[in-house]
Amino acid sequence: MKQKTFVNPIEWRNGTVRIIDQTRLPVELKYEDCAKVSDIWWAIKKLKVRGAPLIGIAGALGFLLGMHKARAKGRSSLRKEAKKLHAYLSLSRPTAVNLSWALSRMQDVVDSCVDKPKDEVLRELKDEVERIIDEDIKMCFRMSEYGSKIIHSGDRLLTVCNAGGLATSGYGTALGVFYRAHEDGKNIKVYACETRPLLQGARLTTWELMHNGIDTTLICDNVAADVMRRFKISGIFVGADRIAANGDFANKIGTYSLAVLANYHKIPFYCAAPFSTFDLSISCGRQIPIEERDKKEVTSLYFKKPIAPLGVSVFNPAFDVTPHGLVSGIITEKGIIRAPFKENIRSIYGK
Amino acid sequence: MKQKTFVNPIEWRNGTVRIIDQTRLPVELKYEDCAKVSDIWWAIKKLKVRGAPLIGIAGALGFLLGMHKARAKGRSSLRKEAKKLHAYLSLSRPTAVNLSWALSRMQDVVDSCVDKPKDEVLRELKDEVERIIDEDIKMCFRMSEYGSKIIHSGDRLLTVCNAGGLATSGYGTALGVFYRAHEDGKNIKVYACETRPLLQGARLTTWELMHNGIDTTLICDNVAADVMRRFKISGIFVGADRIAANGDFANKIGTYSLAVLANYHKIPFYCAAPFSTFDLSISCGRQIPIEERDKKEVTSLYFKKPIAPLGVSVFNPAFDVTPHGLVSGIITEKGIIRAPFKENIRSIYGK
Repeated sequence: MKQKTFVNPIEWRNGTVRIIDQTRLPVELKYEDCAKVSDIWWAIKKLKVRGAPLIGIAGALGFLLGMHKARAKGRSSLRKEAKKLHAYLSLSRPTAVNLSWALSRMQDVVDSCVDKPKDEVLRELKDEVERIIDEDIKMCFRMSEYGSKIIHSGDRLLTVCNAGGLATSGYGTALGVFYRAHEDGKNIKVYACETRPLLQGARLTTWELMHNGIDTTLICDNVAADVMRRFKISGIFVGADRIAANGDFANKIGTYSLAVLANYHKIPFYCAAPFSTFDLSISCGRQIPIEERDKKEVTSLYFKKPIAPLGVSVFNPAFDVTPHGLVSGIITEKGIIRAPFKENIRSIYGK
Repeated sequence: MKQKTFVNPIEWRNGTVRIIDQTRLPVELKYEDCAKVSDIWWAIKKLKVRGAPLIGIAGALGFLLGMHKARAKGRSSLRKEAKKLHAYLSLSRPTAVNLSWALSRMQDVVDSCVDKPKDEVLRELKDEVERIIDEDIKMCFRMSEYGSKIIHSGDRLLTVCNAGGLATSGYGTALGVFYRAHEDGKNIKVYACETRPLLQGARLTTWELMHNGIDTTLICDNVAADVMRRFKISGIFVGADRIAANGDFANKIGTYSLAVLANYHKIPFYCAAPFSTFDLSISCGRQIPIEERDKKEVTSLYFKKPIAPLGVSVFNPAFDVTPHGLVSGIITEKGIIRAPFKENIRSIYGK
C-alpha cells in the first residue's frame, strides 16, 4: 500500500487515551492524556478531538476506558455499566452518527460476551477498538483511491473544515483524496476555507496540507464564491457527519453554501465518507439533529477581545444539511455513489 | 423630515478632522483628531474610517486640511498643492469611487477660484465639504424612503459588512433603509453577516442596529445560506463601493456569494448607493480595481494568537463584483433602478 498516515490523533496508552488537543493547533502540537471517561466526553464536546470518524474512535476508546475503570465484575453489572457508558458518551455531540455507530459496536461486544470474565471482555473490547481504527484507515485509503481517479493534474480544488488525518485515524476522507492524488504525482492546488467560527480550515487543514507538501491557499469563507469564479475551481471535496438514506448529508456549517455556489458555477461537488457515516435509519436530511453551539464561539472565542456588542443575539449552528440534488457523488470505500442516491446507497449498504 | 442621524463618524473641528476610530468599536467609542493629511491617509488605509460614502467625505476633509496646512499662497502654487493632495489622498484605497469623486469636487473648487486669495479659497472649500456632507445625508434619507416602501412588517432581512451611519455621514445606505422601515413602524428582523476578516458586520452593524432598537441576529458568513433557507429571508440589502455603467457593482467581499445564494433561494437582492458611488466611466464590473489586503488580516489580526501556520498563502481581496444579472434593484436617491440597468442608469445619471 502506497499511502501512509502522517499523524496519530488518538491512541490507547497504558490504560489512558492520548489525544492531540486540536484546539491548540497549529500554534502548539500538544498531547493530552485522558484518564477518565469524562475527560473524553469533554474532549469531544470541546472539539479537542473532532471530525466524524475520529469522534467515533474517541467514543470507542472512551467506552473501553470506562469499562476498564468500572468496578462491575459480573455479567449483568458489566452490561449495565456498558449501557450507561453508551448513553453518556453518545450525548457529547449529537450530529455525527459515527459516535453512536462505534458505541453500538462496543456495546455489542459486551452483549456477546456471555459469562466471560471481565479480563476477557476487556481484551475483546480492545480488539474491537483496534478493528474500528484499522477499518477506518483502510476505508480512508480506499476512498482516496476512488477519489483520486476523478482528480487531474492542474486541478484547483476547494474544501471546508477539516476532513483530514486529524478528523480520522490519520489519513482523512476528503483530504485523503487530495493526498492520494498528490502521491499519484498529480499537480494540484487546494483552497482551504477558514471555517468560522472555530477555524478548523485555517488551523488544521492548512497545517495538514502544507505538511504533506500540497500547494495551499487559505481564504475566508466569504471568498469561496469569488475564488470559484476567478480561479475556475475544478472540484469541491468535503467530509460528512451524517448521511441519510437518500444522500442528503450534514457537514460543517457552510457546506450547504458551497454546494449552492458550486451548482451555480457548474463545479462538481463531492462528499467523501466511510460506511460509519451513513445513517440508513433516517430517510432524509431534515431528520438529522443539528447541534447549535455557544454564541461565545462567534462573539469572542479565539479573539483577544469581544468582537460584537454585549448581549447581541447569535445563531450558531455547527452544521448544515446539503440536499442530495446538489451532490455530484459520494466517495465511499466501495466506490463513488451517484444519483439516484437512494437506490444506489441501498444497493451498496442497505439491507 | 422624520429621520435623524444617530452617530457622527467624522467632523471638522478647529482645523483638525475628528473621526471615530472604527477599528475599536464596539469595545470602545474612541474619537481621534487628525491634524495632518497623512493622519487621514492612514485612517482611510487602516479602516479607522471606512464605507464608500464616508471615505469620500474623509477624502474631502483631508483635502481641506491639506490646503489649510499648505504654505502656498499664489494661484498657481495653490493649484499645484491641490493636485498633489488629490493624487496623494486618492491612493489611500483603490476600490470605492466616492473618494476620487469627492476629491475631484474639491479640486474643481480650487480650479474655479481664479485669482482669489487663499482665505477665500479655504472658505469655499469648507463650503464644498459641507455641501458634500449635507447632500450625503439627504441622499441617504431619500434612499431610505424608496427602500422602505419595498419592506413589509414581518420581513426577515439580511445584510453584510456595514452600510450604515458609520459608513456615511451618519444615517446609512442599506441600513438606512432598515432604519426608515423601523421608523415607519414596520416590524423587521435583521441578520447581520459578521464579515470576515475585519468583522465590520459583527462589530459595527450589530452595534448600530441594536442602538436603533432593531431585532438583530449575528451570524458567521458561512451561515447565510442556511439562514436564507431555514428562516425564509424576505430580502437582502447591501451597500456598494463602485457601480459600473451596466449595474455591475463592487462591494465588500462576500457580497457576490450572497447574490448567488439569493438567486438560488429566490430572494430579492438590493444594493443601496447614492450618486457618488456610480462610475459611468467604466462599462462593466471587470474594470473595477479590487484591493487585496495584507494576509495578516486573515491569519492573526483581531486574534490573540496566530490562527494559521506560519508562511501559509492567503488570498485576501477586500471586495468582489456582483454582476447586474443577480441584482433585483439599485436603491438610489432618485428611486429604485431596475433592469435593464444600463439604459435605466443612463436615463437617470448619464450624460
